Amino acid sequence: MQLQVLLVAGTHGNEINGIWLFDEWNKSSFLINTHGIKTCNVIGNPDAKKAGKRYIHNDLNRSFQEESFLSINSSNCESARANELVNLYGEAGENPCQIALDFHTTTASMGSCLVVYGRRNADLALASLIQNQLGLPIYLHESDQKQTGFLVESWPCGLVVEIGPIGQGLLNSRIISQTKLILESLMEQIYKVKNVNQFFPNKLIIHRHIKSIDFPRDEEGNIDGYLHSQRQSKDWQELKKNDELFCKLNGEIIRFEEDETYIPVFINEAAYVEKNIAMSFTKRELWNLKKEWKQSLIDLIHQK
Amino acid sequence: MQLQVLLVAGTHGNEINGIWLFDEWNKSSFLINTHGIKTCNVIGNPDAKKAGKRYIHNDLNRSFQEESFLSINSSNCESARANELVNLYGEAGENPCQIALDFHTTTASMGSCLVVYGRRNADLALASLIQNQLGLPIYLHESDQKQTGFLVESWPCGLVVEIGPIGQGLLNSRIISQTKLILESLMEQIYKVKNVNQFFPNKLIIHRHIKSIDFPRDEEGNIDGYLHSQRQSKDWQELKKNDELFCKLNGEIIRFEEDETYIPVFINEAAYVEKNIAMSFTKRELWNLKKEWKQSLIDLIHQK
Repeated sequence: MQLQVLLVAGTHGNEINGIWLFDEWNKSSFLINTHGIKTCNVIGNPDAKKAGKRYIHNDLNRSFQEESFLSINSSNCESARANELVNLYGEAGENPCQIALDFHTTTASMGSCLVVYGRRNADLALASLIQNQLGLPIYLHESDQKQTGFLVESWPCGLVVEIGPIGQGLLNSRIISQTKLILESLMEQIYKVKNVNQFFPNKLIIHRHIKSIDFPRDEEGNIDGYLHSQRQSKDWQELKKNDELFCKLNGEIIRFEEDETYIPVFINEAAYVEKNIAMSFTKRELWNLKKEWKQSLIDLIHQK
Repeated sequence: MQLQVLLVAGTHGNEINGIWLFDEWNKSSFLINTHGIKTCNVIGNPDAKKAGKRYIHNDLNRSFQEESFLSINSSNCESARANELVNLYGEAGENPCQIALDFHTTTASMGSCLVVYGRRNADLALASLIQNQLGLPIYLHESDQKQTGFLVESWPCGLVVEIGPIGQGLLNSRIISQTKLILESLMEQIYKVKNVNQFFPNKLIIHRHIKSIDFPRDEEGNIDGYLHSQRQSKDWQELKKNDELFCKLNGEIIRFEEDETYIPVFINEAAYVEKNIAMSFTKRELWNLKKEWKQSLIDLIHQK
């Protein structure tokens, strides 16, 4: 079977830069260089895109759950769409893809980065190649039982690309260029693994998810403090004991009181307020690249 | 009758910083200093706020039309709400207010600024006081028959405050502080006109609306070019012949080709895409403050 890569934009309907890039690409196929690798490029949540919203009923990028595949609930837009995408482009689908790349934007100042879910061998190998080429940080999302059912987990290998800061529903030349660059770099690396004896780095830097924290809230559960200006846009920058976290309008400052030092990410992502996440904490770690990761990616791409 | 000022936040449901400030203010009335002037503070479009959208059926800030007051169409959320607000807080309403101040945010890099609609004497006088105190630019919106029915026009005197850049649905400490500062400054000026012999400046700087331009579009009407990086965030900065306006993904640059020089505002405001506005052009002018403007504001505030 021929290697095929699924490229998804607009998994969230109000993250429009990737959607716009894909629309233009459909009109002019020469716009993006996929280095000869076959791709399927799709809009993840076209209904939400039309509505200018993140989603209609549920977050599509939390809808790829075992349960929702077992009990098809056609009245829920996103469960239905998750099923459809897996049936169309899953490993055993009509138009099978082995790798899924899911392009997102964020209102947080994350720059360009990769998110991997759990510690799957092929994901870590592919992420290491991009980090080696572009220097992007990698956020390893794991051990968070409240956040599950991510799209890429339904493919044998899959990465999320996050680019920010950018407001929801806003087209921006920088974000479009960054999306295009990472897309082409990913395809170049996949091409090299397929066609040449691609060099893998020995190490990769991982930002390992530890936990998320919520905004301060009043008795009724309403947010009653906002992010401190010292914390705004400080994604990837160390947070130490006594650093400012939140502010209240009466001047009260809420500080970070743990002895541990963390690297915060997704600081003030607009869509995470409903998930009770003001930011997530990670540990920055230098990992050795394992042989089996590399082999797993090579096997997948060569369809052994 | 006692002077009363209507303060509105969330006329657009996804501009949440003012809404949040008002919610906190309702919990702790000491948070904002209104200098003893009586105020009514309301959320403009609570349904849209709940839905996390700009509006439900129509832009509330284009719904204050003569026609919509004559033919009450209760199936349209925003027509109904416009009627309700005028009935509750209009000059002849249950709880009459003479001045309306409408707090907005924008995804454009407008900083803090005031918008006045048409050339009403009291509006220009009040705007001149704030410009004199804080140095804010004033955008005079007029001669645009496609954009009408603004909230403040239904009150004898009214200004819009616009603060940006900030993404929709995003809470930000800087935007909250700026909103609070301008609100208190406006109340201070109104207090001074009411209680002391307030000094008015002789001149004010006006950015007079000339026209708006759309994004480049393909045959089907879809946007096929984005704002050039040289134009992003350059609100209030001169645009001259041959300056870059838009880009296409094939590298094509669309330049400004008129001989006139303009000052662009509301560059890449996310909510204006549906209104076919990529940015608006203004002329920067130094105006003399007229005696009748000043008198009009004084008369209104003193209820002569």
